[in-house]
Parts: sequence; structure tokens; C-alpha cells
Amino acid sequence: MSSPFISELVRSLARLPGIGPRSARRLALHLLSNREKTMFPLIQQMARTAEKVTTCSVCGNLDEMDPCEICSNPKRNRSLVCVVQGIPDLWAIERTRLYDGVYHILGGVLSALDGVRPDDLSIGELCRRAANDGVEEIILALSATVDGQTTAHYIADRLTGAPVRITRLAQGVPVGGELDYLDDGTLIAALRSRSRISG
Amino acid sequence: MSSPFISELVRSLARLPGIGPRSARRLALHLLSNREKTMFPLIQQMARTAEKVTTCSVCGNLDEMDPCEICSNPKRNRSLVCVVQGIPDLWAIERTRLYDGVYHILGGVLSALDGVRPDDLSIGELCRRAANDGVEEIILALSATVDGQTTAHYIADRLTGAPVRITRLAQGVPVGGELDYLDDGTLIAALRSRSRISG
Repeated sequence: MSSPFISELVRSLARLPGIGPRSARRLALHLLSNREKTMFPLIQQMARTAEKVTTCSVCGNLDEMDPCEICSNPKRNRSLVCVVQGIPDLWAIERTRLYDGVYHILGGVLSALDGVRPDDLSIGELCRRAANDGVEEIILALSATVDGQTTAHYIADRLTGAPVRITRLAQGVPVGGELDYLDDGTLIAALRSRSRISG
Repeated sequence: MSSPFISELVRSLARLPGIGPRSARRLALHLLSNREKTMFPLIQQMARTAEKVTTCSVCGNLDEMDPCEICSNPKRNRSLVCVVQGIPDLWAIERTRLYDGVYHILGGVLSALDGVRPDDLSIGELCRRAANDGVEEIILALSATVDGQTTAHYIADRLTGAPVRITRLAQGVPVGGELDYLDDGTLIAALRSRSRISG
């Protein structure tokens, strides 16, 4: 690449998550070859989004308003709080169109390896919400990983004494999953939590 | 995604080559969560690059100057023109640091399937360069695909009568390639163009 502008752009793109040097080169070329149709609209869109979108002071979601659309929606059940690691998890649960409660975004999970400690997450804020906001149930919707479950246990401990019910997502066979390919841990969890069909 | 700004940004990112809906969501979140460090610098860099970078009127390369740094470099051998499909190929050849000639970017290859016809490529421009600019050799560095080789044949036909030598890249076993994994076509080409070691 002869132009330092292009190589700098390629380097910046390659630093984004999930984009390697090869895709960064391809992206930069695509953008520069489609300036009117792609690059300028994308620049404007990024600038507008960066300016308009803010973090919800109640749950930590990103939205144009604060509190966010979910927290300020009167149809949402505010006594039900779903605790998730990050915004992608919130989006995933919203896509189910099943959940009508509100959220609390932790901002990560505890991790000795990555040096994430309780103060790095919004756990104190969650305890305040549990104590004050008429919350009746807190769903710990954290990943079924060691770090996720450690975090869930830690939060359950911290909430001891708060007048709330604490629940977690069911563990078991994924829908469409074949038993033969399941790991033992999932199979054990599915057996332990088996549900009655009849009799 | 509750915010239309975020969903619009995700949709635009997902339209870029090599980025699916999942990576687009991840990218948008990464950008919005790192506005100062990543998103604003990237916006500025994209705007600056879009403004500064232009297409070389001689070879079709992208650069800050026109003619581009390669075409205007007096150390480059202007009697040697390497014809490539696109700028990524130019970059790949430049990375070898072996080639000291100049380039001609076709802007694609002929393709009946994709409806790419000779007029869509810069073939006429190449013929003019071959006739006027003291060009002695034209290297057709096109992909060893059906479309690439069709295009090479077509260009060689069009250049019949021009006072230039026309060459193409060698075909054979890729360096580090295992014979066992090679396709028959490559093996046949490598056998036909075998070179003498001794005797």
C-alpha cells in the first residue's frame, strides 16, 4: 500500500474485533471504491449514532434516551429484573419476544484470569435496585461457564437478605440438540432437572 | 436493539464484505463502547482517507497523488507493465519487494456469469499504453481461474500487433505445497513446465 492514509485506515480496521489484516484490506478497498454509496453514508451514520446513543443510567443498556426504551416502557414489568453480562445478551433475550421484564447489565463476569473484580461490575448498583425499586424477582441470565456461574453465586450471596426471589436460566438439552453430541455436564444437568410428562 | 440508530448502523456494517449480522452487532457495540478511543478516531480517519485518496489516472491504483507514487517513481521501470485484476493483487505483488515495473489495474475479469464485458474493464486504456508509452513487456498477472485465463487470452488477442512482449505468471507447485494435496490441473501445469536441475 503506497498511501499512508490507506495503510493507517487498514491498521485501524484490523484492530476491530473479528477483523484480520486481510479483511481490513478488503474493507478499506471496498469503502474507497464505493465512497458515495457506502463510505460517506457510513461515516455520517457512525457520527450520528455516536452522538445520539447514550448509556441508560438505570440498566446500562445503550439507547437514544435515558432511561432507555425498555426501562421507561410502562408495559414492562419492573418487578422482574434480568441480569445479563452484556448488551448482546440483552439483544438475544429481546429477540425471543417472550420476556416482558427489565434488565440489569453487569458489564462482564468475574474472572480471576482477566482480573475482573466485583467493583468492575455493576453489582453494587444491582443490590441498590434490589433493595429499593420494588423488585420481586432477579433472573441471573449468565453464561453457563465457570466464570458466569461464579459470578451468579457471588451475586446470589450479595443479595442474601434482600426481599427478592433469585432465579437462573434452566440448564438442559438445547432445542434441536442431539444427545450423542452433548457434553457430560449438560447431560447431567438435564437428567437432574428432568421434568414429568405424565403419571 | 431498541435504538433505530444502532440497528441502522448494524445493518450498514452487515452490508460490508465479509461481515455478517453477528459480527456487525459485535462491531457496533465495540465502537459505541469505545467512542473516544476507537469510534471517533475511525470516523475521522475514514473521512480524511475518503477526501485525500484518489484514483491514479495512469494505472488505476488508489493513492494520495495522481499519477500515483508507483507511476511517478523514477526508479520504477516504465517499460514493464504488470496487468492485475484489482488493487489487492497490486498490494500482494508489492509485498514481494521483487517487482520494479509499473501496473495496470483492469478493474475485474471478463465473466459471462456476472455480465462483465470488455468495455467494463480498462482494456482499451491498456492497448493505448502498449502502443504509446514505450512499453516493452506486459505481464498478465491474472488469477489462474477460468475467467482470469479467458481475460488473459482476450487481452493477448487485443494486443496482437502491438510492439510488446506478453508474458504470464508461472504455474506450478506452490512453495510449501504438498503434492498429495494438489489438484490435477496444477500438477499437469507443473509437469509441463518442469525445469532442468542438471544433466
